[in-house]
Amino acid sequence: MASPSPAQVQRSPTQVPPRPTYIGDFSFAHRHPFVLDGGGSLSRVNLRYAIYGTPNAARDNVVLVCHALSGSAEVHDWWPQLFENLLPLDRYCVLGVNILGSCYGSTGPSQVDPSTGEPFGATFPLISVRDIVRAQALLMDSLGIARLRVAMGGSIGGMQALQWAIEYPDRVGRAIAVGAAPLGAMGLALNHLQRQMIELDPMWQGGTYTDHKPGRGLSLARALATCSYKSTELFDERYGRRANRTGLSPLTNAAGRFDVAGYLDYQGSRFLERFDANSYLCITRTMDNYDPAVTYGSEQVAYGRIRAKIGLVGISSDWLFPEKDVRGMAGAMQRAGADCEYREQTSAHGHDAFLAEWPALEKILSPWIA
Amino acid sequence: MASPSPAQVQRSPTQVPPRPTYIGDFSFAHRHPFVLDGGGSLSRVNLRYAIYGTPNAARDNVVLVCHALSGSAEVHDWWPQLFENLLPLDRYCVLGVNILGSCYGSTGPSQVDPSTGEPFGATFPLISVRDIVRAQALLMDSLGIARLRVAMGGSIGGMQALQWAIEYPDRVGRAIAVGAAPLGAMGLALNHLQRQMIELDPMWQGGTYTDHKPGRGLSLARALATCSYKSTELFDERYGRRANRTGLSPLTNAAGRFDVAGYLDYQGSRFLERFDANSYLCITRTMDNYDPAVTYGSEQVAYGRIRAKIGLVGISSDWLFPEKDVRGMAGAMQRAGADCEYREQTSAHGHDAFLAEWPALEKILSPWIA
Repeated sequence: MASPSPAQVQRSPTQVPPRPTYIGDFSFAHRHPFVLDGGGSLSRVNLRYAIYGTPNAARDNVVLVCHALSGSAEVHDWWPQLFENLLPLDRYCVLGVNILGSCYGSTGPSQVDPSTGEPFGATFPLISVRDIVRAQALLMDSLGIARLRVAMGGSIGGMQALQWAIEYPDRVGRAIAVGAAPLGAMGLALNHLQRQMIELDPMWQGGTYTDHKPGRGLSLARALATCSYKSTELFDERYGRRANRTGLSPLTNAAGRFDVAGYLDYQGSRFLERFDANSYLCITRTMDNYDPAVTYGSEQVAYGRIRAKIGLVGISSDWLFPEKDVRGMAGAMQRAGADCEYREQTSAHGHDAFLAEWPALEKILSPWIA
Repeated sequence: MASPSPAQVQRSPTQVPPRPTYIGDFSFAHRHPFVLDGGGSLSRVNLRYAIYGTPNAARDNVVLVCHALSGSAEVHDWWPQLFENLLPLDRYCVLGVNILGSCYGSTGPSQVDPSTGEPFGATFPLISVRDIVRAQALLMDSLGIARLRVAMGGSIGGMQALQWAIEYPDRVGRAIAVGAAPLGAMGLALNHLQRQMIELDPMWQGGTYTDHKPGRGLSLARALATCSYKSTELFDERYGRRANRTGLSPLTNAAGRFDVAGYLDYQGSRFLERFDANSYLCITRTMDNYDPAVTYGSEQVAYGRIRAKIGLVGISSDWLFPEKDVRGMAGAMQRAGADCEYREQTSAHGHDAFLAEWPALEKILSPWIA
């Protein structure tokens, strides 16, 4: 049976999301290496990308959907609702690109360093959001896409979208970021602790692990991240003080768990099967270092470059990227002369609301896309 | 030079707090073991306690000040301001008791199990807040203190104070708890993760460590706890996105740290010098399991037992024990007929406000003591 066409898919929200029209790899090796903001360089860069639908003749219908920490180029895997009403593929062409430093096809710590023949591991250089976006721009060049209609994303995906607007003022018409701003001190703290958990795992081996992966450390880091992606309110509603549904009672056994602990352990164990610990270290550092005011000298200079229309969404219960930080960034952009609109998404889901409460977010985003 | 008398001390807030009048150990070994709520038992129990000032002839001036997770019997070490105006030692006698499970003199995991001749380690049984308070009551008996004027504390210290009022309705006149309530799901989650960090440390050795302690795991647990004791607002104000004052820049070096990371590492490293990892596991479980509704069958039954006047304080920015949870408990106590007053302490300091913003808290507590 043939796959449904994208146009068919978007008619019914209950249908499975579209598969990519094309999944490919774009590699570039400069005569000079790809020099990174952190001072390192890569002699060869690969980007895994996925295209949904097709660019139109004018190539002005391309929407770049940027993924968050653990996402991939395959947008339909992690933001499937996007295709239903917001970005129907008979009107838009959606592009996903796995970011530098990740472990889903693009150049990252688990890939082989051409200069040594061994995986980069912990020697993989620091990557900035600007590096990620500069590499994406080279991919756009190769695809003949001079200008993005929209760049959008949540979390570090939102950082990329904004970076497009700052770095390439003439190459993007609209940038949308949800739950994204330079990380505050609490976010920096939690990322720091997550990295230390991975490094505490004896299997990490200074980042040189191969077959025996630092699964416990990575799982624990993911569990803490999950706390920061959710909210106290949501956890209370979902898990409260209930004991875990299976196993020993925490009241009578030290190995017993409350329900929320069982949930976090499960989230952690699922994650270690699909993600690389060194990539996790790399990308959390990338998140930490995102700060246009530092990259360009000041907020005024950074945000003064913007020509795209900007849409920012802060999530009311977001603890990792507090709503007030996103709102503060919107104010700074407006003061710098950018055409920036700010909206708050009211949700108990915390940072994850951009994935978990799509209908509410879609209502906010729709006017910005149309 | 002689130490200043307590009366001299309390006149000037800038003077050093009083030393205890007496520090002692109270041991009891029942013919039958001390049976614990979690199902275990202890054949012999020791409690380290400290007395400040002296009981009056009627023995009705004794205030039990209950410590939090990492505190000790020596109240002047961790709540020195208490003696200045709230509890002048010419009027009150202050008693501190190190809790069961701790590592400051009372029976806990680092002490020798008489039945094996080896430290308890991870075999130390589960301890409930009710167990802690029942042991304290035996100490009161031995001191001839039939009734406490006040039992008070913050965090797990507040849980003990409330437990006194519930378990011994006729033995306490007033119970005060600051930043304390049955832990919500987020608090349970964070404690669970902290325990896993300790257990991830290869030095933990299933809890059988001796000389080589699981310092990295304990340090990391303390660092996460520190995040939960503070607030996003406070961290932003104190550390923001500044790089650590010494060392490498996080922008150009993977080993670089932001200021908040340097602070947390320091807090963690100080802690591992003074606290025992198995005690940390034990006491966080004790916190988790505190839930009078479960212990007594229902909130109505538990809080219906109370005859003491109750004062509860919720801290506006407390993330570990959200203000609304403390307020909710106050409502449940009132519905059960208890004489319970609730006050909110407005502070950006998070859970730690009960230690960090004393003057504001003193204003709330004063009318309850006088």
